[in-house]
Formats: sequence, structure tokens, C-alpha cells
Amino acid sequence: MNMPPYAVSIRVRYAETDRMGVVYHANYFVWFEVVRTEFFRSLGLAYRDIEEKRHLCLMVVEAVCRHKKPVTYDDTVRVETSVVDIRNTSITFTYRVIANGTVSAEGETVHVFTDRKGKPVRIPADIRAALSPSR
Amino acid sequence: MNMPPYAVSIRVRYAETDRMGVVYHANYFVWFEVVRTEFFRSLGLAYRDIEEKRHLCLMVVEAVCRHKKPVTYDDTVRVETSVVDIRNTSITFTYRVIANGTVSAEGETVHVFTDRKGKPVRIPADIRAALSPSR
Amino acid sequence: MNMPPYAVSIRVRYAETDRMGVVYHANYFVWFEVVRTEFFRSLGLAYRDIEEKRHLCLMVVEAVCRHKKPVTYDDTVRVETSVVDIRNTSITFTYRVIANGTVSAEGETVHVFTDRKGKPVRIPADIRAALSPSR
Amino acid sequence: MNMPPYAVSIRVRYAETDRMGVVYHANYFVWFEVVRTEFFRSLGLAYRDIEEKRHLCLMVVEAVCRHKKPVTYDDTVRVETSVVDIRNTSITFTYRVIANGTVSAEGETVHVFTDRKGKPVRIPADIRAALSPSR
Repeated sequence: MNMPPYAVSIRVRYAETDRMGVVYHANYFVWFEVVRTEFFRSLGLAYRDIEEKRHLCLMVVEAVCRHKKPVTYDDTVRVETSVVDIRNTSITFTYRVIANGTVSAEGETVHVFTDRKGKPVRIPADIRAALSPSR
Repeated sequence: MNMPPYAVSIRVRYAETDRMGVVYHANYFVWFEVVRTEFFRSLGLAYRDIEEKRHLCLMVVEAVCRHKKPVTYDDTVRVETSVVDIRNTSITFTYRVIANGTVSAEGETVHVFTDRKGKPVRIPADIRAALSPSR
Repeated sequence: MNMPPYAVSIRVRYAETDRMGVVYHANYFVWFEVVRTEFFRSLGLAYRDIEEKRHLCLMVVEAVCRHKKPVTYDDTVRVETSVVDIRNTSITFTYRVIANGTVSAEGETVHVFTDRKGKPVRIPADIRAALSPSR
Repeated sequence: MNMPPYAVSIRVRYAETDRMGVVYHANYFVWFEVVRTEFFRSLGLAYRDIEEKRHLCLMVVEAVCRHKKPVTYDDTVRVETSVVDIRNTSITFTYRVIANGTVSAEGETVHVFTDRKGKPVRIPADIRAALSPSR
């Protein structure tokens, strides 16, 4: 049985818009990062500590976003994430961005756990257990 | 017969890096936008004029990037693009980012031509002709 | 008598750091914008409505930041703002960024109220009254 | 006798604009960084090497920008810089951003040379000699 998605609420910044009047598409990936950080924290895993204390990185190897409906400055978006796959060294998150009850965008990111030199490493057991999609 | 990809050279900015020491993944999409702009210009189509004079937009509806090898501050990257599909209202570009002879990333973006209100519109004939992948 | 500064709390995003391991200096100005937006809202003035309903802009004409101590990913910063001057068409805000009880940075921004074409306009009376530094 | 300013030409990116239709003010500081990098290179000092080989940083301790006239997507801006002061551990650059023959913005940044831990260090003699404003 899957967990419901983890979600955060983000107020759109002026800096995130472009001259089309809406949020510049690449900035959705920043929101994906924000919800990942908070999701890790909610599991008792500060991502900062994974980097600073365990000397591991979660390199982004693939990032996808499908845009459905634009949002703009001062909108409040709900950004949801779920883990959908976890392998020896990699993990896949999915995302939904919801504004005013409508899906603004959906996406995925795939990450590889690496050491500080970029070499893939097995995901540590406690991190794997905490992140596993079905429990 | 397909055209060879159109390419630009970009020097990586300090602002584009993150504390992992490499370019933050979302910034590749900004480079994709830079090469699209220059590709349009090379075809005699200033994208700025498409917005300002024809009142059309190219909304990003899908953006994908697969990261192979990180790059960092002051690296020079070659960013290539090609049109791989063009339909009634949409167009698909592919990209490659190459640094020091190695592929750093590959990606695609799909765009829909819209009016200023976001309503999809047929791609004007001259733009279609200029952008068509095989000629 | 001056009001105490208005403050918001911001969690530092990974995207905001650079390869020096700390927040890229220009991103402090984005935080200044975030606290301005929330300060306006706290006064019953949605800045978005000022743009969308009154067709006014607050153009930045000067921005200053003095950096005292770096902050990094996942730090929580308190960003304070106060209005220190308000004239016919312009307004000056000051800022402090505080992290772990220490001042990380201080700054100012000066803005001119303009119409949509960039022409300076007198600050509307209700906005002036709400923003006035001493009450 | 002072050197004339060093200058680079930058094409404005879509990502650099905001919903006011012009370049978001904080992005001028990124252009200041771009011209600094190229200015260092023109003096035979790759700033990247200063970081990677000498393990020094140029921390920004103050950044100022005065905005005169907005620029937008696809404009070409000329960004000029000069060294106006150099002390034991710090250096001050000034900047001008010029578009279509008009000054768009002027600014300054003050930097302190530090070691990797952020401790100020004397500017190495060769760097001082290369950067000195009058020669």
C-alpha cells in the first residue's frame, strides 16, 4: 500500500515569473527540490546531514516536468511528492503542482546516490527503509 | 534529410552552480532556451518579434533533461538543438549539452503556440516552414 | 515612533547556493522581495492587486546589500524589513537577514511607483498611509 | 592614469525577465559577475584557478545597483567594469550596464579575499599588480 504524497505549500515569488506573466518553467524544478527537502525532513532524514555528515549526494540524473496550467506571482501552490521507485543506487520521485484546485504541472526526478566524487553508491539501509514507497 | 543541429557556446556562470560544486540541474533548461532563441534568429525569426509583433507565445508544455556528467563554473558548454517534430500547434526540440568532448546532458522540450491568453493556435505557415526538421 | 520591523522566516533552498557552498549573493534581493510582499499583505495591501487592479508598479531604482556572514542550504533565515522613507513617488525599505542569532546581511531598496509605461506617479494616499514609517 | 573599463556584451535571456516585462533587478548582479570573470581572464588571471589552485575566494561583502532604465528579453547589453579601489584584503569594482546607447544601470561590488574557511587574507602580489586601477 502506498503512502499518500507528501506536500508543501509555496507562495510564488516575483523572481520566479517571466515576461510571459507566469512562472518560468525551469523554476518548477526548484519547487520539486523544496518538497524533496521537506519530505526527507518529515522522515527524520535531514538531506543536509546526508551531504554534510555522510558525505553522500543525490545527483539528479533525470528531470521531467509536464506543464498543464500556468501559475503566477503570489499564487499559492501545493507541491506534492511521492517515491515511486527505489533501486540499489537510484530513486525516483514524482510530483504534482496544484493551484486553485487544478493541476498546474506534473513531473518526475531520478537521482543517484553518489559519494563526494560522483561515484554511485548503494543507498544506505536506513535511508532506503525510510524512503521505500510501500510500507 | 535532417539538418545538423544548431549550436551555441555558453560559458558557465558562477550563479549557475550550487553547493555540490556543479551546475544546478534546472539551469540546463535556461541554456535550452538560449539555444532556441539563437536558433530562431538563425532562421530569420526573432522569437522576440513572434511575441511582440505577432502576439504569439511558445508555452513550454513538457521539459525533460537527462544528466550524464556535471559541468561547473567557467566550463564552456556547446548546446545543440534540433527540431524533431512539428504538428498543428506544437513543436518538439531536442538538445545536447557537450563539454570537453563529452555529453553532459540531453533533453527535449515540447511547446505549444498560443495567443496572449494561452489559447493554442495553428503554427503560422512561415514559422512552420522555417522550423520544419527536414527540408 | 517607528514600527518594529516586519519579518518572515525563509528556509534556504539548494538552488540558492553556489559552489562556494553558501547562498549566492544576488539571492538576498529575492528574499527582500519576499518580505516586501508579505509586509504589504500584512498591511492589507496585496502587492499583486496594486499591479493587477491599480495598474501600478514598484520599480526598483536602487538595491544595496552588505554581506556579513554567509548562510547555506537548509538554514532558516529571518528577513526583516522596515519603511524608512516615503516621498511623493518613491519609498525606501531597509532589511536585515538574521541566521542563528547573527546578522547575515543588511540592505536597502528604493522603489518608484510608476504606471504600466514606467512613468512615475504619486503614491496613492491609502498606500502612503499604510506604509508610512511612523504612525 | 586609469584604464578604460573592461566590457562584455550579454544577450538578455528570457529567464532573466519577470512579469513586469523587464529584467528582474537582482539579475544585474549576475551580469556583474560575468564581466568580473572575463575581466580577470583578460588579465591572465582565471578566477576559477584562483579558487581551485590557490584556494582563495572573493567573497562579496557589498553589492549596489542603481537602475536607470529597464532592459528586456533579447536586448544586448554592454556591461563595463573597472577596479576603483584595492586595499590589503579587499577590492572594489564599479559597473555600468549600457543598452541602446543609454545607461540602464550602474553599480559597485566590494569583495574580500578569503581562504576556504572565509578568513580574510592579503591579496597576493601578482593579483594586486594585475588588478591595480592605475598603471
